[in-house]
Amino acid sequence: MKFGLTRAGIGSIGSDEQWLQAAAEFGFQVIDGDPVGLVQRHGVQGAAELLARHQVTLGSFGLPVDWRTTDQAFREGLPKLLEAAEAAAALGCKSCCTYILPSTDDAPAPFMARAVKRLRLCAQWLGAYGIKLGLEYVGPHHLRSQWKHPFIWTQADTLALIEAIGEPNVGLLVDSFHWYTTELTYNDIANLPAHLIVHVHINDAPPVPVDQVRDNERLYPGEGVIDLAAFLQALHKSGYQGAVTQEVLTKEPPQEDARELMERSRKALDRVLAAAGLDLLKSRL
Amino acid sequence: MKFGLTRAGIGSIGSDEQWLQAAAEFGFQVIDGDPVGLVQRHGVQGAAELLARHQVTLGSFGLPVDWRTTDQAFREGLPKLLEAAEAAAALGCKSCCTYILPSTDDAPAPFMARAVKRLRLCAQWLGAYGIKLGLEYVGPHHLRSQWKHPFIWTQADTLALIEAIGEPNVGLLVDSFHWYTTELTYNDIANLPAHLIVHVHINDAPPVPVDQVRDNERLYPGEGVIDLAAFLQALHKSGYQGAVTQEVLTKEPPQEDARELMERSRKALDRVLAAAGLDLLKSRL
Amino acid sequence: MKFGLTRAGIGSIGSDEQWLQAAAEFGFQVIDGDPVGLVQRHGVQGAAELLARHQVTLGSFGLPVDWRTTDQAFREGLPKLLEAAEAAAALGCKSCCTYILPSTDDAPAPFMARAVKRLRLCAQWLGAYGIKLGLEYVGPHHLRSQWKHPFIWTQADTLALIEAIGEPNVGLLVDSFHWYTTELTYNDIANLPAHLIVHVHINDAPPVPVDQVRDNERLYPGEGVIDLAAFLQALHKSGYQGAVTQEVLTKEPPQEDARELMERSRKALDRVLAAAGLDLLKSRL
Amino acid sequence: MKFGLTRAGIGSIGSDEQWLQAAAEFGFQVIDGDPVGLVQRHGVQGAAELLARHQVTLGSFGLPVDWRTTDQAFREGLPKLLEAAEAAAALGCKSCCTYILPSTDDAPAPFMARAVKRLRLCAQWLGAYGIKLGLEYVGPHHLRSQWKHPFIWTQADTLALIEAIGEPNVGLLVDSFHWYTTELTYNDIANLPAHLIVHVHINDAPPVPVDQVRDNERLYPGEGVIDLAAFLQALHKSGYQGAVTQEVLTKEPPQEDARELMERSRKALDRVLAAAGLDLLKSRL
Repeated sequence: MKFGLTRAGIGSIGSDEQWLQAAAEFGFQVIDGDPVGLVQRHGVQGAAELLARHQVTLGSFGLPVDWRTTDQAFREGLPKLLEAAEAAAALGCKSCCTYILPSTDDAPAPFMARAVKRLRLCAQWLGAYGIKLGLEYVGPHHLRSQWKHPFIWTQADTLALIEAIGEPNVGLLVDSFHWYTTELTYNDIANLPAHLIVHVHINDAPPVPVDQVRDNERLYPGEGVIDLAAFLQALHKSGYQGAVTQEVLTKEPPQEDARELMERSRKALDRVLAAAGLDLLKSRL
Repeated sequence: MKFGLTRAGIGSIGSDEQWLQAAAEFGFQVIDGDPVGLVQRHGVQGAAELLARHQVTLGSFGLPVDWRTTDQAFREGLPKLLEAAEAAAALGCKSCCTYILPSTDDAPAPFMARAVKRLRLCAQWLGAYGIKLGLEYVGPHHLRSQWKHPFIWTQADTLALIEAIGEPNVGLLVDSFHWYTTELTYNDIANLPAHLIVHVHINDAPPVPVDQVRDNERLYPGEGVIDLAAFLQALHKSGYQGAVTQEVLTKEPPQEDARELMERSRKALDRVLAAAGLDLLKSRL
Repeated sequence: MKFGLTRAGIGSIGSDEQWLQAAAEFGFQVIDGDPVGLVQRHGVQGAAELLARHQVTLGSFGLPVDWRTTDQAFREGLPKLLEAAEAAAALGCKSCCTYILPSTDDAPAPFMARAVKRLRLCAQWLGAYGIKLGLEYVGPHHLRSQWKHPFIWTQADTLALIEAIGEPNVGLLVDSFHWYTTELTYNDIANLPAHLIVHVHINDAPPVPVDQVRDNERLYPGEGVIDLAAFLQALHKSGYQGAVTQEVLTKEPPQEDARELMERSRKALDRVLAAAGLDLLKSRL
Repeated sequence: MKFGLTRAGIGSIGSDEQWLQAAAEFGFQVIDGDPVGLVQRHGVQGAAELLARHQVTLGSFGLPVDWRTTDQAFREGLPKLLEAAEAAAALGCKSCCTYILPSTDDAPAPFMARAVKRLRLCAQWLGAYGIKLGLEYVGPHHLRSQWKHPFIWTQADTLALIEAIGEPNVGLLVDSFHWYTTELTYNDIANLPAHLIVHVHINDAPPVPVDQVRDNERLYPGEGVIDLAAFLQALHKSGYQGAVTQEVLTKEPPQEDARELMERSRKALDRVLAAAGLDLLKSRL
């Protein structure tokens, strides 16, 4: 596994250059970011060199297409999907993710049929560039009734969706927060075929009843109550060798200094890796 | 188009032999029936000869696998699917259909994901034998709330399901009763690509408000209020050249003599064909 | 069926405007052309209006991606595919075609595996825009040994390729020249499911032995030896309702005046339609 | 990884019971065998108990359908495929394999198109039972010209075929003999995504020029010239955790006593595991 960062939880880190330099300095190997932005700001060659210079790779990027509303909106996003896939492929990034909200204002059965069709098309386009599509189930209880009808929020139902899509390059984004809020166990991850794990997010939850946990009240790894040692051990057991990036979603952006947050993130990670007994892993992988 | 019968609406017609003989006598060209039963009772050769002798073909058969409950139940039905596909192929039958109930006790979104996966598998197996899979949407209002959650009942949503399945041999079973109870028009059928119409059922509805029509209170074609002339003209316009079979579902089996019902069915059909101006069609196709 | 023109056989007709005007004047309903060029020259709105003003539709456009050489060349063509699909969809064109050369310098089995994968991807992308992909088999004998290894040139093998691709929106481009040079009959077309015919080319062959016919020595419909009456009757029987465009490939572009060639093309078409007994067809469809 | 045996290289070991008992006694964890035969001889329950009693699992079974000749022969094999899939699933076996001959008497391009379609169908049926399909490329030079036309024999072309098939449950059977005779390296296996390795065969080659190696002149692991240490290390590096079974194909069945051959097989395996530095692996996995 490779460990890294998203923009969530590191404050105002500044330019790409500053972010990558700080990530490297604090020992992170991967960042989740927007390949199109990188290419627009630095050119393909420049962006590739920027990453190489800091020995940081691009972990995953967000699916830039609206698959949740109308056929027209979906179709209008396809050129953006192509642009992102080209940029990502040029920068060596092989993972693209999207999240699935646990409730919806649309009639759920027809919405699922349309989601299958649209996400399959996205997977096919991404596959042309050697990129996998990761689907993130979203666990917090309050979101299950945020919109009119329940949709899906369990790993099992997300795997059923993946089977309905039926493309070889589709899998899960496993987020410790959703693993926790859907009350899954070590085995639910350990028994996954590794290739079905496309990307991993790590973060922690506050000590409130699990059905009270809110999606935008996340903590740094090790600062909350999620058994992240078991989470990482289970990922290791599954054979997963990809990226694990911290994503600390909060109501307000953190006010602390960015380097301070970087250091805090690094220590948080070290703590959970130590607890997981996976220190050696870092150096080896 | 070829016109024919199901078992619904013809009373106790008796043996296969008697059914086929009566169908032929009254000018029907096709019956919907169970290919496995025919083969079991007559052997492949015998069943084929029986059909040939009466110049009647097998229109469509019901999907003999439970795709609506558990993975285990589904899997246990697969040998039956294989047996039916083999028998149907041996008898020249190229169409297999299943209906989709408009409401469900299951959570609708996960059920849709599983339906896509299971129906795709059925389509793939049927495809190995050159057989198409037709999905029948079910329109009557009382069934939309018969079970806990709404599922799908419109032609548009069924086409979305067909696209989610994504196999070339999947299409619609268009039933005049469901076309009527979902308040579709001539164009909704006329504009369908013909290959998306796998099979057609014809029957009529009583003169009650459309949201009061009950699924098992169907009438013989032309004895009710459905504009079956428009229905047949729209099918013709679409280019559909397959079977149209009468399916008169009633609370109690009709008590009349079977031959009498046959004659009534024939006259019913002639009436709507005449109204549709499609007399010539019969002789030509 | 709708009848129309490609650029092959009409000389130097001039601008889009002139071409469309002449096509309309001579009673053609459809042209095969480049949607991207039309949009670049006239804008989406302008191109749509240009077509509408002359009551001419866009029949089919060529697949603008190199699926025959390397993975890299293929991938580099994908943005062009997207651009063409967007332009075509905006102009109401639903058909894209590519031809398959009957011999190849590549090892044929691996080339076929790669062709399946690449053409499937093209079909999936086109399908997102409601466009079908037509594969044209190429019959003339001299091309079967033009390159090192035989590939495929029969309708049956092309249908096998279509099944290997496995997408619902892939079918044949049926060209009378290849139908003739592969010595097919009325039934080979009449028995095709209509939805498997994506586009049709019509032209004629000189009175030389069939194995001597050269691909770029084509004649105007009715000026050669192909039984085009049977060809059109078979298309009609299949239920095909799409475009039939004249494609008269010649060694040198014809030197005659463009309007003269237009008139010749129109008379050629009228002759074969009359021979086919399909006069009424023209007015009806 | 789990290590085990096929019937090739162990002489006349006798009944299932004797084979399993000997396999267990000599420390093998897996056998490749026929699930249908096991179920026919012992019943589902009995066969499962037999395997459990000896702590031996079923590694892989041969695809019991003729995908190489006619559509009819293929279709006639489908009931056998279903039977085998049911038996395998009942016994916990998740892998089915078939080999691809490197030359063919058929025209190679059409044969490839048909192979894609037929193997896809097999994969879909197997997938319904949670079983993967492994394709074995066959390297020895003499077989590349055994039949009229070259087909495919490289890992790269087999991966292209797998992509053409396009189902998530299809991958490679990697055999050390074919890895060696196609002159692949450590990286060719190490860089494979683990889920693309469905099954592994291990055996050795005699010290003759690589283009002289014959398919049925195989040696026990470690008794020949293949770098099996690198082979196993590369498998380990890829993340493969499945079965590795010995398959010593010889012109004549070995004449030695079966237990003697068992012991020889075990020592052979220990030798290459020791050379690979993978002793610990055995105990852990």
